[in-house]
Amino acid sequence: MERLLVTNIGVLATPEGTSARGGGDQGSVRTLRDAWVLMEDGLIAALGTGQTPPPPGARVLDAGGRLVTPGLVDAHTHLIFGGWRQDELALKLRGVPYLDILAQGGGILSTVRATRSASQEELEAKARLALDEMLSLGTTTCEAKSGYGLETETELRQLRAIRALDRTHPVDLAATFLGAHALPEAYKGDRAAYVRLLCQEMIPAAAAEGLADFCDVFCETGVFTAEESRTILEAGMQYGLRPKIHADEIDAVGGSRLAGEMGAVSAEHLIVCPPEGIAALAAGGTVACLLPATSFYLGADYAPARAMVDAGVPVALATDFNPGSCPCLNMQLVMGLGCLKYRLTPEEVLTAATLNGAAAMGLADRTGSVEPGKWGDLVVWEAGDLNYVTYRLGSNLAHTVIKKGVPYGREKQKCLN
Amino acid sequence: MERLLVTNIGVLATPEGTSARGGGDQGSVRTLRDAWVLMEDGLIAALGTGQTPPPPGARVLDAGGRLVTPGLVDAHTHLIFGGWRQDELALKLRGVPYLDILAQGGGILSTVRATRSASQEELEAKARLALDEMLSLGTTTCEAKSGYGLETETELRQLRAIRALDRTHPVDLAATFLGAHALPEAYKGDRAAYVRLLCQEMIPAAAAEGLADFCDVFCETGVFTAEESRTILEAGMQYGLRPKIHADEIDAVGGSRLAGEMGAVSAEHLIVCPPEGIAALAAGGTVACLLPATSFYLGADYAPARAMVDAGVPVALATDFNPGSCPCLNMQLVMGLGCLKYRLTPEEVLTAATLNGAAAMGLADRTGSVEPGKWGDLVVWEAGDLNYVTYRLGSNLAHTVIKKGVPYGREKQKCLN
Repeated sequence: MERLLVTNIGVLATPEGTSARGGGDQGSVRTLRDAWVLMEDGLIAALGTGQTPPPPGARVLDAGGRLVTPGLVDAHTHLIFGGWRQDELALKLRGVPYLDILAQGGGILSTVRATRSASQEELEAKARLALDEMLSLGTTTCEAKSGYGLETETELRQLRAIRALDRTHPVDLAATFLGAHALPEAYKGDRAAYVRLLCQEMIPAAAAEGLADFCDVFCETGVFTAEESRTILEAGMQYGLRPKIHADEIDAVGGSRLAGEMGAVSAEHLIVCPPEGIAALAAGGTVACLLPATSFYLGADYAPARAMVDAGVPVALATDFNPGSCPCLNMQLVMGLGCLKYRLTPEEVLTAATLNGAAAMGLADRTGSVEPGKWGDLVVWEAGDLNYVTYRLGSNLAHTVIKKGVPYGREKQKCLN
Repeated sequence: MERLLVTNIGVLATPEGTSARGGGDQGSVRTLRDAWVLMEDGLIAALGTGQTPPPPGARVLDAGGRLVTPGLVDAHTHLIFGGWRQDELALKLRGVPYLDILAQGGGILSTVRATRSASQEELEAKARLALDEMLSLGTTTCEAKSGYGLETETELRQLRAIRALDRTHPVDLAATFLGAHALPEAYKGDRAAYVRLLCQEMIPAAAAEGLADFCDVFCETGVFTAEESRTILEAGMQYGLRPKIHADEIDAVGGSRLAGEMGAVSAEHLIVCPPEGIAALAAGGTVACLLPATSFYLGADYAPARAMVDAGVPVALATDFNPGSCPCLNMQLVMGLGCLKYRLTPEEVLTAATLNGAAAMGLADRTGSVEPGKWGDLVVWEAGDLNYVTYRLGSNLAHTVIKKGVPYGREKQKCLN
């Protein structure tokens, strides 16, 4: 039996409470001082305070009085893609109109081209570097979407890459089918044909190989209507894929209402979510998965996080890592934005970045809090308290990241609290 | 002779042009493809393109086709301080009014108390950890200010810590006397007495020990008037301390005009700098040292960087690292903000973060660009081009940082471009 005992934890901070989907009561954080956590075979076996003798054969990790929290959960990423699009921001800053950038072959369709032309091995190798970095920043579980194929074979290849990485990389991954990420050029004249392709070919094929846990749709003006979104998500549900939905990012075209009505696991973005959408999410027990780094990167507004919390909607924070609107994979920066831009408290942000992220992935029974029986996923922080983590913007404060009982360290000591 | 040859540089990008103070023409960047740089005894000896045979005894560093730029220059930090203030943001987020936080002993005066009670060794040890992290993020030269003493002995202790760190840490430091950072409680009834203390005791004492290169003043409503600022800066000049000035951060009370009139080396913040202030800076050849992470952290407006560039003012970007308004020491994040919030191009940002930062420190003849005779200060980036550096928000893309010809590496490979 593999045992890891983390001792000398100055403060152990873990979200608690059980809301819909197993998420936490936003901001309800249990703290233990002078604590220890024992992990056995990758799972949390016990925790307590004061001294405890190491069990036989246990490896001991001295946390040096530092803060320990659950590993971070990034519940919304577009991890698998070919190419990058670093030139588009520079072009915009030089005054080139976005339509000209599109006309020059830029935008999401350039990522679609690059992804279609990449092998599964290439997609995996590229994503693996990102996962390494995410782990070094404290992320122990992440969701990843397809959606840069927009054709059956590439969508399946993206999902296979996610499954392969889940098997071979320490970070645990959930896979979301997002064939409805955009309408492919070839279907501009026949939207219904693409919806049929999604429902009758792609979803069944993904399900047959067991490649996806969730089905997601980009419900937005110019992309998929709420009615189309419902059709696609219902097709996914028939094949066992639980619904997620990109809703109310630019226009409120009914995505949040649909999410609540369908009891979607999560709704994403929600920048312009209206009060009735918030009420629908609360009623449906849907997690609001908010993506502040995208608002920041695009100079857009910020989702009404406070109103959601006040309405009892479980709020999660995630990166939205993707090569276009948010080339950021750093959950610590996202947590800082949660305080500075959403005006959530550090405790609310912790719930959002751990237990509610897990709930948005249907994994609240496995990770997102430090409880016996859950995965041994912890971050030992170069910090003495939670306030410090959200305060020290721009520094990687993850001292040691523990994934299923295995510690991953860093080379550098950072500013000590 | 110590020799380091950096070979296989995919793109060498270095700012060029000579504006006032030796700063660069904003955004004028020379690029060499397939380049090499030779350093001898810490200085750049030669550079070129194509293959070059390593000179005898040279250590060779293969840049692997990566981007190389000058080391980053952080021209405005409050590096030396006791304590942190992580609880203040959390209190604000919980709705505690700032005046209550001050009444509870928070705000700058809490840092003054913590700094006064710290020994020089304690101040050095704490700042050394910050410098280690800054170096790992690409900063090879930084400015540091006193200003948390507000009494002679502590101000001098801060400056001695800066000088000691400059001697013992790889990062080169310049020292700025900022006794005029705030009005101490004890002098609320007699402002003139504190100005006299600054001019007649602190500045002469700092100069006598050779502890400061610059004199700075916080010219702002409720702090020091433009007239008081002139008195203090002129006293500094008499003792060989070149003037800098915190100007137009909250109210435009004449700081930028004064900076230009006095030919100050730099003016800092400049969030509300009026057109006549911009004209004065341009006329005086004063570098505008802009601090976007502070605007970001405080939720304040952003300085009119574009108008300054258009008016011919050399613009530098710096962190403002301090425990209150900007606990961020990451120049890469500052560069990202330069693009996203100031709408500067990546090339303009490079000039701002290297050569114009050096100019703001009076060091444009020593660092800030890759030219023979300058310090061998380079960053090898985990990137193939400059656009990628400002695009990949939230990741530390510094692969290897070279300071005076000595490479400092990192442990992790990041997402490859």
